[in-house]
Amino acid sequence: MEILITNDDGIYAEGIYALACAMKKVGNVTVVAPDTQRSAVGHAITITDPLRVTPANRNGKFFGYAASGTPADCVKLGIKAIMKKRPDLVVSGINLGGNQAYNILYSGTVSGATEGALLGIPSMAVSLDTFKNPDFGPSAEFAVKLARQMARRSVPPGTLLNVNLPNIPARKIKGVRVTNQSRTCFNDWFDKRTDPHGNTYYWMTGDFKPKDADKASDLNALLAGYVSVTPIQFDLTDYKFISELESWDLA
Amino acid sequence: MEILITNDDGIYAEGIYALACAMKKVGNVTVVAPDTQRSAVGHAITITDPLRVTPANRNGKFFGYAASGTPADCVKLGIKAIMKKRPDLVVSGINLGGNQAYNILYSGTVSGATEGALLGIPSMAVSLDTFKNPDFGPSAEFAVKLARQMARRSVPPGTLLNVNLPNIPARKIKGVRVTNQSRTCFNDWFDKRTDPHGNTYYWMTGDFKPKDADKASDLNALLAGYVSVTPIQFDLTDYKFISELESWDLA
Repeated sequence: MEILITNDDGIYAEGIYALACAMKKVGNVTVVAPDTQRSAVGHAITITDPLRVTPANRNGKFFGYAASGTPADCVKLGIKAIMKKRPDLVVSGINLGGNQAYNILYSGTVSGATEGALLGIPSMAVSLDTFKNPDFGPSAEFAVKLARQMARRSVPPGTLLNVNLPNIPARKIKGVRVTNQSRTCFNDWFDKRTDPHGNTYYWMTGDFKPKDADKASDLNALLAGYVSVTPIQFDLTDYKFISELESWDLA
Repeated sequence: MEILITNDDGIYAEGIYALACAMKKVGNVTVVAPDTQRSAVGHAITITDPLRVTPANRNGKFFGYAASGTPADCVKLGIKAIMKKRPDLVVSGINLGGNQAYNILYSGTVSGATEGALLGIPSMAVSLDTFKNPDFGPSAEFAVKLARQMARRSVPPGTLLNVNLPNIPARKIKGVRVTNQSRTCFNDWFDKRTDPHGNTYYWMTGDFKPKDADKASDLNALLAGYVSVTPIQFDLTDYKFISELESWDLA
């Protein structure tokens, strides 16, 4: 099994190292990841600049390819320019920070897996819901388990699996829930400040710890101590609204 | 009616100027747009850098606020830091280049309207399907018509209208179609080159003129000379696959 691994925290992040080491149990691993942190890039691709690719070592050994692009660029590059065989699986992560609810839209981690899914390859994104004291062990182990299931079963073309884990010891994880994307919005705002030269600037900030009463959601599962697995797809059409919209006076 | 306008081609682009001038027929216009071109940024937000906002003139008159961020940042800033009243409508565009099919996922233009929709404000994205010799007139005029309809009717919360126009004279436009997002994928690849110092680099390129047999799709409408209006929403959950996924061995 050929496995392409990327992330958005960059090729030198802890999470991708844990993931790549674990995935070697399942197949041949090729790492193509951004040369620096690219969090919250959304599903960006690089069209106005050329992309560079450099071999990257970790612990004194070749680890993978560092690219001057986004996670989506890395997956495209991996499949179309670097790997000799087409991968059987794309895995993006392990991200430091959860990618649940509408975070999915902003997530570079998810966008790496999205690119894989759009190119017709079974793909998953794996995120650990913490920004502090991460233990990537349980996430890496779950990614291996899920990869084995994906090799045996089939995911619809264009659909990827978005996985999130709570940052608790493996023995405390209550189980796995297949979930939907939470509809909870984060409450964010701007902190307005003045720089030493008298100019105004803004920091985006917010309350990123919302609750969600929807028991079937990814957010709720994480808060309750479960691993969440959400199948996501990329036809954004609001089909329910089409017939009403057709009655509008647009001609 | 208070209208917030943004784009991803930057505040000095032609398309946003045509849009802002036209929208003044409908209400009070506030422009908050990126200070430079931010195409293909996806739904990026800026979290690791502060944002700066500077007044921008066009034709010697105050036009709007230039922000050092993405379209999504601009909409957040407009609503949460710049406008005194909450807008009744967010309009993103007019983009130079269509945002149809899976382009929606990569589109900064759409992400501006997405941010508006997520914040609960009726929103639309407007794109002109060409990169050369744009005539923004028909697009600006259609945006005005649609804005008036949106003021009278209602769009479901979280849904935005993604509008694309073919770049043909108004009298040649065949009509308006309410469409779905095309499932056609663009065929792209990398052009591998060597720089004057002997180093390899890659340009992403591709065949961006695909066809689509789905008569109900945005891509098909554009190719046939119609304006396309696609309602899009942001729950990406693949609900159809949930029950099968629940049968997998994940515990």
